[in-house]
Amino acid sequence: MPASPVPLSPLPTPLNVGLAGLGTVGAGVIRLLAANADLVAARAGRPIRVVAVSARDRQRTRGVDLSGFAWEDDATRLAARADVDLVVELVGGADGPALTLARATLGAGKPLVTANKAMLAHHGLELASLAEGTGTALRFEAAVAGGIPVIKGLREGAAANRLSRVYGILNGTCNYILSRMAAEGLEFADVLADAQAQGFAEADPGFDIDGVDAAHKLTLLSALAFGTPPDLARVQVEGIRHVRLADVRQAEALGYEIRLVGLSERVGDALAERVAPCLVPRAHPLASVTGPLNAVVAEGDFVGRLLFVGAGAGAGPTASAVVADLIAIARGESGPAFSTAAAALVPLPVASAAERVGRYYLRLRVADRPGVLADLTAILRDAGVSIESLNQPASGADGTALVVMVTHECAETAARAAVVRMAELSAVAEPPLIMPLLPTEG
Amino acid sequence: MPASPVPLSPLPTPLNVGLAGLGTVGAGVIRLLAANADLVAARAGRPIRVVAVSARDRQRTRGVDLSGFAWEDDATRLAARADVDLVVELVGGADGPALTLARATLGAGKPLVTANKAMLAHHGLELASLAEGTGTALRFEAAVAGGIPVIKGLREGAAANRLSRVYGILNGTCNYILSRMAAEGLEFADVLADAQAQGFAEADPGFDIDGVDAAHKLTLLSALAFGTPPDLARVQVEGIRHVRLADVRQAEALGYEIRLVGLSERVGDALAERVAPCLVPRAHPLASVTGPLNAVVAEGDFVGRLLFVGAGAGAGPTASAVVADLIAIARGESGPAFSTAAAALVPLPVASAAERVGRYYLRLRVADRPGVLADLTAILRDAGVSIESLNQPASGADGTALVVMVTHECAETAARAAVVRMAELSAVAEPPLIMPLLPTEG
Repeated sequence: MPASPVPLSPLPTPLNVGLAGLGTVGAGVIRLLAANADLVAARAGRPIRVVAVSARDRQRTRGVDLSGFAWEDDATRLAARADVDLVVELVGGADGPALTLARATLGAGKPLVTANKAMLAHHGLELASLAEGTGTALRFEAAVAGGIPVIKGLREGAAANRLSRVYGILNGTCNYILSRMAAEGLEFADVLADAQAQGFAEADPGFDIDGVDAAHKLTLLSALAFGTPPDLARVQVEGIRHVRLADVRQAEALGYEIRLVGLSERVGDALAERVAPCLVPRAHPLASVTGPLNAVVAEGDFVGRLLFVGAGAGAGPTASAVVADLIAIARGESGPAFSTAAAALVPLPVASAAERVGRYYLRLRVADRPGVLADLTAILRDAGVSIESLNQPASGADGTALVVMVTHECAETAARAAVVRMAELSAVAEPPLIMPLLPTEG
Repeated sequence: MPASPVPLSPLPTPLNVGLAGLGTVGAGVIRLLAANADLVAARAGRPIRVVAVSARDRQRTRGVDLSGFAWEDDATRLAARADVDLVVELVGGADGPALTLARATLGAGKPLVTANKAMLAHHGLELASLAEGTGTALRFEAAVAGGIPVIKGLREGAAANRLSRVYGILNGTCNYILSRMAAEGLEFADVLADAQAQGFAEADPGFDIDGVDAAHKLTLLSALAFGTPPDLARVQVEGIRHVRLADVRQAEALGYEIRLVGLSERVGDALAERVAPCLVPRAHPLASVTGPLNAVVAEGDFVGRLLFVGAGAGAGPTASAVVADLIAIARGESGPAFSTAAAALVPLPVASAAERVGRYYLRLRVADRPGVLADLTAILRDAGVSIESLNQPASGADGTALVVMVTHECAETAARAAVVRMAELSAVAEPPLIMPLLPTEG
């Protein structure tokens, strides 16, 4: 007599995903879910599978087989499909189809996973409220620092802490450019052109190199760390366009590396949020983060300093972050998008520049003639800013010379007021550059 | 007429915690929950409060006020208390009261949060099965790498990836000792004695310096990363007792730092798990992790290399990790302790030393006389191990000299067999030291 068959346990219900946007990251998500299907199912407790997709151009070659998925020309329709449990939004753009899809998905009470920092920087509070109102999840691990689980790190890992500062290298393109300037002795424009030729930088690179992308991401870190709604208008943004090779070399001589840093920091009862090229001391962990890597530091009252480093972009790392969110949702994990419930997010006062105290690097190109240094130093003296070091690294063939100064600690208002006055001098040949120095310790 | 009062929304139910163990970390948890009560409640969606505690000695001064908490002489009774929703186990020890309490808590279907790596290394599979059987949570963020959310990083952040290696600096005491040897030019025994005098190292330091503590932690990382049940017997463990200042200096001359590394790595279908002092290339991120810091690296097929760095021990960081787990449980987050369901954890074959291929550092103290080097190199030749570099840094006053060799890539069996034969030579004055070199890249 044959043994009676072992009863099979019921198969777990799959999590059915609608995927909007089939660019590099979208194709990466499809590839990951195929390559690691067994492992993802084991960790999620159920299979995760794409059932329907949408993109602008159905005909485009993407290197992934779409034949197993339903197609929607209109991404918004993914949210309404009965066979879609969850939508992954990889369309991009702060408004437009991405926002329409996000609203439709969360409004229907279905979870949304997105990599769209621009949309969240502008509409994060609205979308988080919508998700909480319909009792569903909004997750965005892939929106900041690519594959690094830094959203999870702040939202959950450091959740017990009152944080004083969160900061990091949030834009891989800028870090790549600054690293290559330093390593190869190239000027900004040359590295940018080469990066564009190689496809590492966008044809319209402004979003990256002017710091806007990093600012979008910073608003999300601020919300998680400080319970303030994401708000781009709060962030003081400067990019790396005006950083010269001479600045990189001067910084090195002073013991620093130049990095584009997004920094969100409590200043008394207020919050200072800025993106700016900074001088990072060589002993600081961010100084050794080179190339396209991203890194985030969080400083908490109990945990001390946490550092997260990894790939900040690319199909694989970003897909890893998207699928991490899918696994969390498949496991039934919930909780507010920004760690604190949307209704309890409170805008903190914006710290004024006068409240920001630090050391600053000033670089000027001046006419190479006697008396100019006396004029510059007099302006700083009158502004109450004292100088820690002053260097004149090189005279140009054009009759101008660089002057590089590092201030002692002073209010940023004072340093900036001095720079404005310096720029008015006839001897100053181009707008001066001012960059903050990042302290080694908290 | 007075306005009618705004109806209050119902207060959320607090999460009531029973806390066993009131040492440094237990007191830290009480202090954190008091200091950050508002913030923890906002992030957890409900207040988290200790209601009952237990420790060996009720009278001991701990610097925290226990008067608001019920007291249990027998920790196990915490699990049975009707007013306790969840137990935090900070008693320590692989068996005994900690294990009894863990079984009672999970058996009662109440979540357990523990920092007890020894217990989980020995009984992790049983406890995870028990938790899943009663439908409750087992969480242990504080058991590995103190405040660094690395359990979360592997269990959730990197969950979409097939990992090839997980490794790191898992014992702060060893890292502190090795860092001070390098920075101050001291011998192992002197730093250890000083660390003990200052309370940085235990009176019985064997657990730390012989690598056992790091091995406990490594079993947990292996379970999360590779879906294998935690099993201490699988781990090849060597500590730092035999590392000399001369080794530190030789390593530096070769471009390396010595770190005690716990490493779990796929080798074909098998898994190699080891704790050993390793030579870490200066360009590798672990080389710059000094003092009491911990760091963990995870390498995945989609995400690439992730690095997590932070404080590996201490009341504040460890309490931060414990309360992170409390917040996750208060949010209703669930899922298996080791990422994969306990029943689906499958022991991987243990990689044999013959399958482990790498470069090795060999250090011998030999009689300072002609012919010894010829004997040593002949042994290596006969074992099929080729030498990349050979140095004789110093002759001792006692008629012995150090010989330091670095091999080319070879099977670990071959290198070890050669070392055994060398040790048999009459000219070899003490047991040779062999240390693996960690590659810079994956």
